[in-house]
Amino acid sequence: MILQSVIDIAEICARKGVQDVVLSPGSRCAPLTLAFARHPQLRVRTVPDERSAAFIGLGIAQQTGRPVVLVCTSGTAAYNYAPAIAEAFYQNIPLLVLTADRPPEWIDQLDGQTIRQTHIYGGHVKRSLDFPVDTAHADAKWFASRLINEALNEATAFPEGPVHVNVPLREPFYPEPGEEFAYKADVKIIEELASGFGLPNQQWETLRQELSAFKRVLVVAGQGRKDQALHEEIVAFCRATGAVLVTDTISNQQKAGDSINFHDVFLGAKHLHGEEALRPDLLITFHKSLISKNLKLFLRKQPGMRHWHVQPAGQVADTFQALTRIVRTTPQAFFQEIGKGEKPLMVTPAFTQAWHELEHQGKSVLARFQENSPFSEFMACYQTLRMLPANSVLHLANSMSVRYANLIGVAEVEGLEVFANRGTSGIDGSTSTAVGAALSTDKLVTLITGDMAFLYDRNALWHNYLPQNLRILVLNNHGGGIFRMIEGPRSQPELRPFFETEQMQTAQATAQEMGFNYVRVADAASLETLFPAFFNPATGPQLLEVETVSAENFAAFESFRDQVRSNICL
Amino acid sequence: MILQSVIDIAEICARKGVQDVVLSPGSRCAPLTLAFARHPQLRVRTVPDERSAAFIGLGIAQQTGRPVVLVCTSGTAAYNYAPAIAEAFYQNIPLLVLTADRPPEWIDQLDGQTIRQTHIYGGHVKRSLDFPVDTAHADAKWFASRLINEALNEATAFPEGPVHVNVPLREPFYPEPGEEFAYKADVKIIEELASGFGLPNQQWETLRQELSAFKRVLVVAGQGRKDQALHEEIVAFCRATGAVLVTDTISNQQKAGDSINFHDVFLGAKHLHGEEALRPDLLITFHKSLISKNLKLFLRKQPGMRHWHVQPAGQVADTFQALTRIVRTTPQAFFQEIGKGEKPLMVTPAFTQAWHELEHQGKSVLARFQENSPFSEFMACYQTLRMLPANSVLHLANSMSVRYANLIGVAEVEGLEVFANRGTSGIDGSTSTAVGAALSTDKLVTLITGDMAFLYDRNALWHNYLPQNLRILVLNNHGGGIFRMIEGPRSQPELRPFFETEQMQTAQATAQEMGFNYVRVADAASLETLFPAFFNPATGPQLLEVETVSAENFAAFESFRDQVRSNICL
Repeated sequence: MILQSVIDIAEICARKGVQDVVLSPGSRCAPLTLAFARHPQLRVRTVPDERSAAFIGLGIAQQTGRPVVLVCTSGTAAYNYAPAIAEAFYQNIPLLVLTADRPPEWIDQLDGQTIRQTHIYGGHVKRSLDFPVDTAHADAKWFASRLINEALNEATAFPEGPVHVNVPLREPFYPEPGEEFAYKADVKIIEELASGFGLPNQQWETLRQELSAFKRVLVVAGQGRKDQALHEEIVAFCRATGAVLVTDTISNQQKAGDSINFHDVFLGAKHLHGEEALRPDLLITFHKSLISKNLKLFLRKQPGMRHWHVQPAGQVADTFQALTRIVRTTPQAFFQEIGKGEKPLMVTPAFTQAWHELEHQGKSVLARFQENSPFSEFMACYQTLRMLPANSVLHLANSMSVRYANLIGVAEVEGLEVFANRGTSGIDGSTSTAVGAALSTDKLVTLITGDMAFLYDRNALWHNYLPQNLRILVLNNHGGGIFRMIEGPRSQPELRPFFETEQMQTAQATAQEMGFNYVRVADAASLETLFPAFFNPATGPQLLEVETVSAENFAAFESFRDQVRSNICL
Repeated sequence: MILQSVIDIAEICARKGVQDVVLSPGSRCAPLTLAFARHPQLRVRTVPDERSAAFIGLGIAQQTGRPVVLVCTSGTAAYNYAPAIAEAFYQNIPLLVLTADRPPEWIDQLDGQTIRQTHIYGGHVKRSLDFPVDTAHADAKWFASRLINEALNEATAFPEGPVHVNVPLREPFYPEPGEEFAYKADVKIIEELASGFGLPNQQWETLRQELSAFKRVLVVAGQGRKDQALHEEIVAFCRATGAVLVTDTISNQQKAGDSINFHDVFLGAKHLHGEEALRPDLLITFHKSLISKNLKLFLRKQPGMRHWHVQPAGQVADTFQALTRIVRTTPQAFFQEIGKGEKPLMVTPAFTQAWHELEHQGKSVLARFQENSPFSEFMACYQTLRMLPANSVLHLANSMSVRYANLIGVAEVEGLEVFANRGTSGIDGSTSTAVGAALSTDKLVTLITGDMAFLYDRNALWHNYLPQNLRILVLNNHGGGIFRMIEGPRSQPELRPFFETEQMQTAQATAQEMGFNYVRVADAASLETLFPAFFNPATGPQLLEVETVSAENFAAFESFRDQVRSNICL
């Protein structure tokens, strides 16, 4: 007999807005599998490698903005979820993680697939709950359904994130012939109405008054979803005040003309970091992480700068060692309200001009470099980003792909949304995450990745749901090319074997085995000719591999850094 | 400047018996990488996928009996180790896990590859330690080197297991040009002399006296290493007393004539479980887990049975819900001492005979079945186990491979040692573990695995150390065939999509990409002709794939179970 309380989990999830469930096969989890697989309102997929399954679930939740349920069996299956759960925790993505377990009396008794699952994800879930073992008592039934409500409410409360429910299950795992298996209309639902996080009027007044004293205001957008209403508020604020908006590619706030998008290029000229003309007296930030190390280093070196971070709730990072104020409202409310009032902020024009002048220089240096340099993965990235279709989705793998893209920018691609696993910046789930996204949108999803990230996560494609709208560009330099870009490892004799970790595979075998159309190129002209077919929505899943030589990539990138150093100036 | 305390870690490890180190590439871990890679006495390998790297390390430690050091960078890299660490914890395999980390002040500050690593492995390590961040003070230097000693002493103390040391590291990660990088002769070493776990004489007297009252003594060997001295003591004890030794394949105590090896076959005849002739009044167990579910169920149903478990130290499982005494000595000392004395135990001959009669029947039913049944993966397993070279190593993957092998037995293969990841019984690292073993022995290492386990862990082979002595037999039924063997999932409409999880890949692409010689067969005669080349040590890495149809495997296995039920009797 399957417990009604287990069947109720699926019904509660469906009623509370879950649409997608990712299962991995197992015996202990069978009651959960059946409860979800049979539910008429849920889209249920099964992915054998739990590491990939969890990142696919993360990709779906990231794309749809809705919580995704993960279900795995007991034992190390649960641990294979852990990398994606840590990523979801730091990227604030709502996941309800259901791990089947043996009942507590059978833990550590040498039975198979049994580990210590309670609180297994440590500090990387918003909450960790234990589903009741026995639900015969009415209080236990209430507890079971209350707990699933609490878990979903917590996962979707700001800041969103993963919640773990460990579900101990006793045999039998399967319904007897003729046994009733029904979703109940009267399951317990606890709705949670979210706060709007408005500030009291008096605090707005204080903020406006204080703001008006600053003359050099820099607004820096961290990683966040595309949000047109927010974007318009910020742009209006900047236009009205002269404040400068700086955007990484993953901020989804890039807009040619309105934002600074080439800061990662021009701040590579380190002599600018002490430049008085660029020095902010107030830094306003919102959302999550930055890619640009140049920007981080610059912001950590600004003496006397005040730093306000706008975030409705949750722990706040002091990324630039300069944090002075946390404002507990939404970024949209902040920029809408802060610009109001009698005495608008007036930023020193020289400050605004300096940033825009450098933006212009950064863009030019980059464009000239790409026109005149030999082929490299940096150029392949440049070519690709310039050809991205409007209103498509871009996924960037760690580690070099996302860095190249951040230098190049996507400010001119209309309606593009950019994602990258920058919660923890691992290479372990970039492909799986892109697969999850592609399964959840009709838009074209392009993943730019490297050979290490692609091959590491090749099981992302090992299931029966190959998305027709997925395009993968693999930059293959046969190793971890990033290590050659850094002076430390480059000058060690261990570079090739222990840092770059030379590997001779291409993506071909994996691509073809998984059902992709596969092409490999090694020069700019060939790459250019392939884009029309690659980005054609009718051609089905495509994998384009760009083979380059690590030493040549380094030479090209070094030459680019030289050009930045010698051509950027105020 | 690289901290001398970090360089000392490698020296302390080498001085305390570590010979093998498995690294995964990263930047934060660079000081550890250099400290280990440059050490003249350590064999250092690098494996990009940390999940596989950790299982390869586990395989090396399992094979060599020495602690292995794992080194990874910060972030989710550490979490990818977790499945192997849980396996090592439950299988008692010594690992020193060094995870590089950012210093504590940079945790949760939105910098890349930063998660909450302290105590990240929860209850699945023997101990979790934090390496000091600053080692300028003399006390901190003492602490750093003391801590590595403690970690290694703990990892290798009985019962062995993984110990985690989180190592926060500040930049610079690389030595300056001309910087001294030297291993110091005077590093601190704390030796630990292990107890022999002898019992006081008086306790031996009591045990002998109590033992003599039992008339139906069953000795059951759990998973353990091959140990000839122990084996001889047990056999001598059984011969002298009439006690019956029951051995799963993974006990490495199988010996035709001296042990019961076909219990998993004959106890499949469930009507025997209540048979008075088989009923033990004393069960003596040692070592770890059992595969045979039939044996477990049988032992859980014996009324009034006393259960003594012999284990020198550590938590003891009550696997059969019958545990009455824990004896804190070594199994070898136990069987040596317990048989001594004036009044030897005399087991009822009918008990001994009943078990040996069923052993004979089990073996015959199995042999007749294999001669007369159509080809299936069960038969492929039977053929292969019969052809294993003497003095070789066998690895069995979860989940059906190890079950088939446990039915078939390996009692007649001279000098064979058998391994399986039965600490947690996951499929996630079976291939990696076999790779680790093959890297650590000159013997031939044969892995029998299924398509799900093989493809799940395909990154086991993604590195530059393909072992020439590795042989892999993949039983490919295009899904998780085990689910069809169980009545519950078999009778659900969800069987194929959600339990078996049909997958269409073969091992061919992976095998060829990874440098294996690959052959696929689908019948018994072809398989037989391939064994000479497959097991020839000169042919290099071989992968032999046996393709079967899940429904036919089920029919064959069901027919076998029928024959057991109708032919086994007392």
